[in-house]
Amino acid sequence: MEDLDPRFVRADSKWLARHRVEPGGAVDLASIPSVGGRKLDKKSARKAYRRSVRKLSELQEKFYADGRFAMLVVFQAMDAGGKDSTIRNVLGPLNPQGCRVSSFKVPHSEEAAHDYLWRIHRAAPARGMIGVFNRSHYEDVLVVRVKNLVEEERWRRRYEHINQFEKMLSDEGTVIVKFFLHISNEYQRKRLQRRLDRPDKHWKFSPADLAERARWPKYTEAFEEALARCSTPHAPWHIIPAENRWYRNLAVARILLATMRKLDLSYPEVTFDPSEIKLT
Amino acid sequence: MEDLDPRFVRADSKWLARHRVEPGGAVDLASIPSVGGRKLDKKSARKAYRRSVRKLSELQEKFYADGRFAMLVVFQAMDAGGKDSTIRNVLGPLNPQGCRVSSFKVPHSEEAAHDYLWRIHRAAPARGMIGVFNRSHYEDVLVVRVKNLVEEERWRRRYEHINQFEKMLSDEGTVIVKFFLHISNEYQRKRLQRRLDRPDKHWKFSPADLAERARWPKYTEAFEEALARCSTPHAPWHIIPAENRWYRNLAVARILLATMRKLDLSYPEVTFDPSEIKLT
Repeated sequence: MEDLDPRFVRADSKWLARHRVEPGGAVDLASIPSVGGRKLDKKSARKAYRRSVRKLSELQEKFYADGRFAMLVVFQAMDAGGKDSTIRNVLGPLNPQGCRVSSFKVPHSEEAAHDYLWRIHRAAPARGMIGVFNRSHYEDVLVVRVKNLVEEERWRRRYEHINQFEKMLSDEGTVIVKFFLHISNEYQRKRLQRRLDRPDKHWKFSPADLAERARWPKYTEAFEEALARCSTPHAPWHIIPAENRWYRNLAVARILLATMRKLDLSYPEVTFDPSEIKLT
Repeated sequence: MEDLDPRFVRADSKWLARHRVEPGGAVDLASIPSVGGRKLDKKSARKAYRRSVRKLSELQEKFYADGRFAMLVVFQAMDAGGKDSTIRNVLGPLNPQGCRVSSFKVPHSEEAAHDYLWRIHRAAPARGMIGVFNRSHYEDVLVVRVKNLVEEERWRRRYEHINQFEKMLSDEGTVIVKFFLHISNEYQRKRLQRRLDRPDKHWKFSPADLAERARWPKYTEAFEEALARCSTPHAPWHIIPAENRWYRNLAVARILLATMRKLDLSYPEVTFDPSEIKLT
């Protein structure tokens, strides 16, 4: 038995399916709870999360040694959805040599002078490495759509570009896992208020956040379409209820662990006989 | 009092000086102990190390928010000197979004088609970020010298290039700290033997390691000259006795913490009045 509480012993396959967006289905965020783990005991869940992260960290060395796969973990969310915190809690404990976080902000001039996948491709993880994207190419069908930065005809084509790009990465050895951290409008208000209330958090707030918040319905629509159209067998989206941070951390850690376990990793065969080597 | 044991309450300035190579001095590695912390209690040292790493991690957010500085941490050592393990133990607990490790291996063709500082400069940390180099431009006066990959006249000029390059980085806001993890020849033998003895460590061993080990005296000479010539006030080298890993971790963590504390970091002033903003 892996965890004491039987509710955490759920098989890997169940964790993989639990929050996954089924390819081809529709997504209605209002019907999906943004608070997770209501029936779970918080303390046991925290313990299970720590255990999963430790196992993930152990497997990471084998993943690196095996060297056949790269792993790409994508995080998207509304503002204040907890991307930074999730990355810190779940990916932070990994060996930093094998894990690289890329944060995609407003494209700078060299990036903007290229197609939108150019900067993404450059940041793709090498074999043996885990690449974490804090925001991603999905911004090009989210903020770009909501703020009308390009014409509809142009962003509409992108769902297919993205699916094909991710298919190529997957065919060439990159395992892709995507997480949408799901929060409610009211929860966002509370989190933003907290940034205003705490002087050491003021720097995280920008008056521009208010304008973004006012676009909540448009973002919801954009997310729903992106999640529905770009959840594929080779690069599934997971909608994680993110308002209980302990549940969010547990779910993300368990999904990553389950994904890595499916890879059947092994240490590479060595071409020498260790017993024949004498060190002096 | 920061730590219970008075031997760990050493002021930051003492930690900064303790293992530093004085600019302009000579380095004789044989006269410097490779086993650290002989007079310390291992358990208290471990506790102090954990505490230092926690404080470093707290300060890292302020460092990021402040945004005036970048930090570059360089690790060099003989093979099996513990670079990977130190990076994992001391830098691993930081927020991975603000910390990026670059491992410099044999230059690939595009890298080799440029000057030796080209790939280094590309990996330099941005302001707010901590960049960690596992090996570095110093390989260009170490392995390159030992294996005669370029003529002596050419690698000899590089000490000055490196000092000037690091001076420019420092002038432009990058704080540089360099660590040489110091081990004995016998300790290296034991660590390599361990890789041969453990099947899950075989992949870390290469028969080429034997040839490198045979060049120990030449590497020692090359390190001594690099450490002596390139320890500057703006980019000091520290020689860390690395055979007690708990002491090594403590010393590296305390030196980084002391370096960061000297920066007098602050949260940036915001240009809006948080009390005037109403979230709905």
